[in-house]
Amino acid sequence: MQDKIAELRRHLSPIYDLKAISYLLEWDQSTYMPPGGASARARQVAFLEGLRHERLTDPALGRLLEELHAYEETLPYDSEDASLIRVTRRDHERAVRVPAPFVAEAYGHFAQTYQAWMEARPANDFETVRPYLEKSLDFSRRYAEFFPESEHVADPLIAEYDYGMTASAVSKVFAELHAELVPLVKVVTNQGEADDSCLRQRFPESTQWDFALEVIQRLGYDLRRGRQDKSPHPFTTVFSIGDVRITIRVRERDLGEALFGAIHEAGHALYEQGVEEGLEGTPLAEGTSAGVHESQSRLWENIVGRSQPFWRFFYPPLQKLFPEQLGKVSLDTFYRALNKVQRSPIRTEADELTYNLHVMIRFDLELQLLEGKLAVRDLPEAWRERYRADLGIVPPDDRDGVLQDLHWYWGFVGGAFQGYTLGNIQSALFLEAALREHPEIVGEMEEGEFATLLSWLQEKIYRHGRKFTADDLIERITGGPLRIGPYMDYLRDKYGALYGV
Amino acid sequence: MQDKIAELRRHLSPIYDLKAISYLLEWDQSTYMPPGGASARARQVAFLEGLRHERLTDPALGRLLEELHAYEETLPYDSEDASLIRVTRRDHERAVRVPAPFVAEAYGHFAQTYQAWMEARPANDFETVRPYLEKSLDFSRRYAEFFPESEHVADPLIAEYDYGMTASAVSKVFAELHAELVPLVKVVTNQGEADDSCLRQRFPESTQWDFALEVIQRLGYDLRRGRQDKSPHPFTTVFSIGDVRITIRVRERDLGEALFGAIHEAGHALYEQGVEEGLEGTPLAEGTSAGVHESQSRLWENIVGRSQPFWRFFYPPLQKLFPEQLGKVSLDTFYRALNKVQRSPIRTEADELTYNLHVMIRFDLELQLLEGKLAVRDLPEAWRERYRADLGIVPPDDRDGVLQDLHWYWGFVGGAFQGYTLGNIQSALFLEAALREHPEIVGEMEEGEFATLLSWLQEKIYRHGRKFTADDLIERITGGPLRIGPYMDYLRDKYGALYGV
Repeated sequence: MQDKIAELRRHLSPIYDLKAISYLLEWDQSTYMPPGGASARARQVAFLEGLRHERLTDPALGRLLEELHAYEETLPYDSEDASLIRVTRRDHERAVRVPAPFVAEAYGHFAQTYQAWMEARPANDFETVRPYLEKSLDFSRRYAEFFPESEHVADPLIAEYDYGMTASAVSKVFAELHAELVPLVKVVTNQGEADDSCLRQRFPESTQWDFALEVIQRLGYDLRRGRQDKSPHPFTTVFSIGDVRITIRVRERDLGEALFGAIHEAGHALYEQGVEEGLEGTPLAEGTSAGVHESQSRLWENIVGRSQPFWRFFYPPLQKLFPEQLGKVSLDTFYRALNKVQRSPIRTEADELTYNLHVMIRFDLELQLLEGKLAVRDLPEAWRERYRADLGIVPPDDRDGVLQDLHWYWGFVGGAFQGYTLGNIQSALFLEAALREHPEIVGEMEEGEFATLLSWLQEKIYRHGRKFTADDLIERITGGPLRIGPYMDYLRDKYGALYGV
Repeated sequence: MQDKIAELRRHLSPIYDLKAISYLLEWDQSTYMPPGGASARARQVAFLEGLRHERLTDPALGRLLEELHAYEETLPYDSEDASLIRVTRRDHERAVRVPAPFVAEAYGHFAQTYQAWMEARPANDFETVRPYLEKSLDFSRRYAEFFPESEHVADPLIAEYDYGMTASAVSKVFAELHAELVPLVKVVTNQGEADDSCLRQRFPESTQWDFALEVIQRLGYDLRRGRQDKSPHPFTTVFSIGDVRITIRVRERDLGEALFGAIHEAGHALYEQGVEEGLEGTPLAEGTSAGVHESQSRLWENIVGRSQPFWRFFYPPLQKLFPEQLGKVSLDTFYRALNKVQRSPIRTEADELTYNLHVMIRFDLELQLLEGKLAVRDLPEAWRERYRADLGIVPPDDRDGVLQDLHWYWGFVGGAFQGYTLGNIQSALFLEAALREHPEIVGEMEEGEFATLLSWLQEKIYRHGRKFTADDLIERITGGPLRIGPYMDYLRDKYGALYGV
């Protein structure tokens, strides 16, 4: 059967590369491409995506997978060959459901929608983008119809990001979390706001840039296999296991922007750099789900990067870099500033505690849109109502309301948000398990050492790529299913201490 | 027939894009890619090249071209449709001669050769790279055998770069030029060396970078459709007519490196930015030959960029940028330094006058290699002999001798050098014609204005892309064939005045 496996890998390698090449084209578009390159670039990305879809849905691949079925049954679930066959089959079977012309039409529409949103957002003009969003919603429902066995219209969309999750499973977890989080946010925000003015001074951009780069290298991000560039929206991208890049943005008057952006993206990048080399060129060579990916970016950004032990090590060198700005600011004041809780309208700027409320609002609203219970024209008002109810504030306008995130304006409506909060929940589950095995991790952080934590994550999560689903990983690591307990314990401990509640 | 033309364009657009995408991968590799990305990148470029060759040799394309033959005959030579059919047929017919496995095998070997050369050059180790070069030479001859109608073994290789030229035609022109150039170089270098120490001071890199960028924008390089980055070897690359980028390198102790590198590459880039937009996505959307391309880079770099009128405008602002270094250096001293003639071993650092001697040595040696009259093992000695005979110097070692240029170590042996000197000859031909129609060009240069020259070049050369061959262009512009007279007149006038001979 090894020749069949070799044949499978030969078929899969170009599919992997076509995706990687598309990613490079998109990375370049976000970092260095001059404006004149835009129209050809859109054509080139669409062409590559078409080629990829063609090869992924090739009936020859289907036949090969059939021929490998009996062999697969003889192998343990966690063997590389079995995983390769299983995950390839999953991708192939999902892709063949969706006709190529539909994909081309939908992605053509999304490209236009993205352009419209780019202009509509700064202009605070939801009306212009509304017809686009209505059409995107229509495409999303038609997409779901290719999976008629689904229980909920959102399920096929959720499966694209968080395979194994469904609308009802997510809703159940989110309801539990919502019930515990809303009162906690109320109690904390009633204590008055922390003072974060120390972060709002002038910090020269190039010093911020260098410090961020130093921190993430210390965490384990390997610059021989990566790099840091600037882009309007930070992201991580993968051209091969040996080339995993991050982008950040820097703001002179916000010390957090570059630094936590870099740590967040480095979390994603550590995951991708940690995939076993032998998986390169296959669909296994990637983080397994949006949720698990986010669990890593949020673990490194928040649980590690906004913790006291972390800053016991990094604050003195930071003070040396910015003696005028931070020389007289105590570690405690700095730590409180980094963890200021505040009801605010923007998701990406939200603190750890309110962040999930933003996500859950979006998730609930997109379910209602997909179910047909909410019309796109009523979306801005529904948005404001939910913000009033959950966060006690109303966004000043649509720009900082319903237009703030690109997710609904560059692809299908549905599936792209739940991963953020699933990731937060998972991050605490994983860390709890790591600390149980290696309680020394906290002490090492105070020394600026992260090798034990990184190796544990690599061994348990990173190296496997997509061999295991999120549920598999959680079961293997914690011995049970996803649960919110450890995450709520973490939040209560941290913010209880910070706000004396 | 318009539907057949549309069908042809639909077939050609992916071929164009596959090449553009390969170029982006290579640009990234030379500018920003971390070392860990190298192996996957080589695989990805090879994969794209395979796809491109497959589509270019597709029998369906051959049939389409046959169906269009009768239509083509009804059209004038210079019509867009006729040119599109003619040039596509040429590319298709040349590509189908060469079997895909041969292409894959040869380019696989070239990739290894390039790696070997990268290590051999700094180590001054020709012996290690010799077997690679022998194999490359073998591939080159086998390549030529696919074109058995050729008069000379080098002709099919020359046609890849300078379609329409042959070994015998090039040799004839080069012999004329050699006969006039060698005595001129002798007379000039007997006058003693000019003093170029003013260029060898410390010039902060970022100021050099900005000045170079300002100069090339003034020449007409459009940054909305281009950008300037750093790479170890300067080059120009095209991802679409709207995205034509250059790379340069900067040396703190050499004011010429960044500036003339930028002007040279901008010359290439002006050509590519000037191609008519309607040609995008077809094989016409590209400079027509290595020679004509080089005629533009050398025209802007040398005839314009190293001229007195040019520096009458640009020297005062340059002095302001570097008051300590240049404040007391007169324009005349500076101009003489820029045009210092010196017998030196390195082609890329050679002055205008000796440059062509370097090129002709390489051209003659590669003909001898291809003809089997010179063995690879005897190449270093043959190299030294020719340098002694033509330039009166012997390179200190192979690193600065036979190993200095990458051309023989990254592809077929043959075809890649003659374009440099053909371009120099053409640059003077073209400029003479431009000045005949627009004598005001010189006066405009003194004002820092280049629009008349640029528009003329755009109208006569750039916009046509590959519609016309080099010979077509020369005939249309000068009314006759390629001749060395205007180039020798230019050199004699300029260096006669400079060296009082």
